[in-house]
Amino acid sequence: MSVITVERKILQKNDEVAAANRQTFTNSGLFTINLVSSPGAGKTTLLERTLEKITGQMRISVVEGDVQTDNDARRIAAYDIPVVQIVTNGACHLEAQLVKDAVVNLPLADTDLLIIENVGNLVCPASYDLGEDMKVVLFSTTEGDDKPLKYPKMFRVADVCVINKTDLLPYIEFDIQKARENALNINPNLTIFEISAKTGEGMDAWLKWLAGEVERRK
Amino acid sequence: MSVITVERKILQKNDEVAAANRQTFTNSGLFTINLVSSPGAGKTTLLERTLEKITGQMRISVVEGDVQTDNDARRIAAYDIPVVQIVTNGACHLEAQLVKDAVVNLPLADTDLLIIENVGNLVCPASYDLGEDMKVVLFSTTEGDDKPLKYPKMFRVADVCVINKTDLLPYIEFDIQKARENALNINPNLTIFEISAKTGEGMDAWLKWLAGEVERRK
Repeated sequence: MSVITVERKILQKNDEVAAANRQTFTNSGLFTINLVSSPGAGKTTLLERTLEKITGQMRISVVEGDVQTDNDARRIAAYDIPVVQIVTNGACHLEAQLVKDAVVNLPLADTDLLIIENVGNLVCPASYDLGEDMKVVLFSTTEGDDKPLKYPKMFRVADVCVINKTDLLPYIEFDIQKARENALNINPNLTIFEISAKTGEGMDAWLKWLAGEVERRK
Repeated sequence: MSVITVERKILQKNDEVAAANRQTFTNSGLFTINLVSSPGAGKTTLLERTLEKITGQMRISVVEGDVQTDNDARRIAAYDIPVVQIVTNGACHLEAQLVKDAVVNLPLADTDLLIIENVGNLVCPASYDLGEDMKVVLFSTTEGDDKPLKYPKMFRVADVCVINKTDLLPYIEFDIQKARENALNINPNLTIFEISAKTGEGMDAWLKWLAGEVERRK
């Protein structure tokens, strides 16, 4: 029983810090997304393709979360935008305090879009609010169309679902209509995009949506 | 500080139950593997192909772990072997006590190979010994050849690494030699198999290895 109490306190404390982060982001007129997925679903590649297309149109800052290595931050830094790497040293998710400590190193007043790339994990990050406006859950066609049913919490707390790796559809068994239905059964309010971050297919709709959300907050 | 103490106690208690499980499994002359991977890497499909090929040669029982749904247990039950589903109700990994409670429903005395399929998560299950002989970490080519570097703990605690979805190699950027090197840099003792659970490519070496490990324990 005491363990459950401790866990509840950790989440409660996290929610308090997340609320403070949210206030900070709102005051800066930022649009903030928390990008979550399984390992290897393509979060960093989606981010790279997004940066290639819209760095001229808006000012972007990035927080990278990883259990180990700063490989992702180095990939993003190549685009010459502000990026901070959080290495969790084994912890399976980002927490609001880590984000709070990280963003002091970012030029929030000169940022329009803040993207937080979470640790690759389709379970634990669902429980930790970071202060973002929206959670964007990415899953790839190669993971199977049943994933929303098997990891429902992440799809329930997300606002947007991006189905990635559509370029591989000819080579795998993946029913994209069924995937959409499964996701919407868990969360009828999900906005869904189908993309290939590799070939660029479907990226326009995603970029247009991002630009609209940024504009709304100015 | 008190939180860290509680976490240490949880892991310590888990290790004690895992040790008891290991004794039970050893007394029954079982070979037990704990199958871990990201969501959608192909754990259940590997299990299905394995069952198709070797149910005649040895007696297999299965424990299925999922955060939600009993879809996997139903897929495995179709092979007419003993299977128990653990639904963790949101928890991101199996623990030794859950396995202890599950296996009382399995005919351990009449089992040669016990396969525990963990929750899809490349981070948290690395910290929880279940009493298995070996952890088998599966990762798929579509996740990228950098995964051992980015999620090193799982590759460090594993004995065997199965690289799945080799049938998709012509369509993706994945350097299988680099993947092997990355895995062996983290853990030089890893036994590595390259397979396609879909086409059956490479399955023979995996099945032969399994049969050898089962034989050794009889």
